[in-house]
Amino acid sequence: MRIALLLVGYGNVGRRYVELLGESQAALAAMGIAPVVVGIVTRRQGGIFDASGLDSPAITAWLERPSPGHVSTVEFIGDALDRLRVAPFDRSVVVETTTLDVASGEPAISHVRAALRGGADVISANKGPVAFAWRALADEAARVGRSFLFEGAVMDGIPIFNLVRETMPAVVVHGFRGVVNSTTNFMLTAMERGERFDVALARMQAEGIAEADPSLDVDGWDAAAKAAALANVLLDAETTPVAVEREGIGPETGPRALEARRRGRVLKLVASGAGRGAGARMRVRLEELAPDDPLAVLDGQGNALELDTWPLGRVVITQRDGGLEKTAYALVADLVTVARRMRA
Amino acid sequence: MRIALLLVGYGNVGRRYVELLGESQAALAAMGIAPVVVGIVTRRQGGIFDASGLDSPAITAWLERPSPGHVSTVEFIGDALDRLRVAPFDRSVVVETTTLDVASGEPAISHVRAALRGGADVISANKGPVAFAWRALADEAARVGRSFLFEGAVMDGIPIFNLVRETMPAVVVHGFRGVVNSTTNFMLTAMERGERFDVALARMQAEGIAEADPSLDVDGWDAAAKAAALANVLLDAETTPVAVEREGIGPETGPRALEARRRGRVLKLVASGAGRGAGARMRVRLEELAPDDPLAVLDGQGNALELDTWPLGRVVITQRDGGLEKTAYALVADLVTVARRMRA
Repeated sequence: MRIALLLVGYGNVGRRYVELLGESQAALAAMGIAPVVVGIVTRRQGGIFDASGLDSPAITAWLERPSPGHVSTVEFIGDALDRLRVAPFDRSVVVETTTLDVASGEPAISHVRAALRGGADVISANKGPVAFAWRALADEAARVGRSFLFEGAVMDGIPIFNLVRETMPAVVVHGFRGVVNSTTNFMLTAMERGERFDVALARMQAEGIAEADPSLDVDGWDAAAKAAALANVLLDAETTPVAVEREGIGPETGPRALEARRRGRVLKLVASGAGRGAGARMRVRLEELAPDDPLAVLDGQGNALELDTWPLGRVVITQRDGGLEKTAYALVADLVTVARRMRA
Repeated sequence: MRIALLLVGYGNVGRRYVELLGESQAALAAMGIAPVVVGIVTRRQGGIFDASGLDSPAITAWLERPSPGHVSTVEFIGDALDRLRVAPFDRSVVVETTTLDVASGEPAISHVRAALRGGADVISANKGPVAFAWRALADEAARVGRSFLFEGAVMDGIPIFNLVRETMPAVVVHGFRGVVNSTTNFMLTAMERGERFDVALARMQAEGIAEADPSLDVDGWDAAAKAAALANVLLDAETTPVAVEREGIGPETGPRALEARRRGRVLKLVASGAGRGAGARMRVRLEELAPDDPLAVLDGQGNALELDTWPLGRVVITQRDGGLEKTAYALVADLVTVARRMRA
């Protein structure tokens, strides 16, 4: 089936996604999936659209043109999806990879709404919509018969939401605990070796792992958003990141990490949730773990999530290697899910 | 949809499966799945069949009757599936849980063939068929439009085959390594604490974890069968357990484990595979692991499998809690897969 892709946001993840679609072309074709990038819109660069498909030179030329000033992304999505109604595609999919305003989940939530309203499925690498508005967006998607997917929101492309939905039918998830923020995990690992907080942080920024404004990571907001996303989907919590009890790391965390190591323990920033529905409780906090805890053995770039389930007991999934292309892969997996549902 | 279940083998896993279907009734009903146990056949007890469904008193009465002498399980499967053709079910599923002859994969392979021949899907907790005859059985299932599923063959009900098939589309698996045999892992853990081989083994047998004849476990055959199953499905290897380079544990392993610990390393029996197709190489051997290896931190009852993939890098899935009902759950997951495919 021919699927028109409209990219909303075109940063590193979006670019790697387009490459990965090319590298996965044979595998996707074997599943009957032929994706075509027909449009891109970003806040800075405005939009480009061609229902016959955008090739690499066209995208490069667009990126090099001067910024057009303010463009309404929501309007661009609506217009592009209108034009796609008469184009020869089996489906339109909006690929949402804008950056997150952690206080509101916007503008991504508005992008998701505009996409569903325009008859598109939405796949997002953004944790905002699922962390802030999961129930409303899931209901809206169900109402219009489209998918709202976000495998990349937690632990990059490592299957979390797909793991539970596709491979654990009839399983009850009682709770979860995980190390899900790479910047703080890198920094804790460095501080355990005696590195100072500010030195570790500067290194994270130099390596492009932490943002220029690292407060989202070090203050625990990123982990809280992921905890809210997990609680919404796995525990039916209808919560937001603001409701997550939250702790971050700071200069005082280094001595604590060293002291824990001296006692044979490991200090990690753990995001967890337990209970169900309105009774679910989420928190992000520094916890001392036993050295043989699957969360304790993670090096800087590792992430892991433990699910406490019936009847499978505790199941852990671990990501040992980091990197942008894992997040880009999540969008490939979500695209395949859309296609599988179209066939079902 | 109403699904008729024919149980081939009725040991601990089969019995727990029937209970678990009851406990999962609401979740299965929400997916539109109504399973009915219509027949059971075992080598010792012969068969019982009632197309209107077997209730618990009927099964108990059957179990208490004297053994009828020799009954051909393959013939029983064929006859039962014939009778089900006129019964009011949407599908017949054969649930294979007999014990494995590790030298041949039989009689389970014959049971799978008889089931497919009779028009049934097959779900099996048995590693024999997938370890010895994966390609032939998968081809036969495809030919008749039925499923051959075996999530319980490796790591009980923890998703392995479903993980790759359902949640990692377009991913390439380069190889795997895992701790997948619980008896030897329990014994290694005990021997690290100074317990003698024969004492640890006797305890495993007393606790029902090791078989009366423990050679399948301690000689590495169980792990080799699992390595062959994984290589067949994930690496397209068309191999058998006999082709797996194999090492087991013995009285001499205890001192090695203790010596490794003294050097800060951990001795584990690791099943691994790498390469693809005819070039795939599988082995089971004792390996000294770094203490922060996700396979090293497993306690006795833990199992874990690391997949080396493109583009997700190394992904590990860990089972922290053991037990029969995890294997029984695998058969629930496989039943749901059958139903999902019927709908697709």
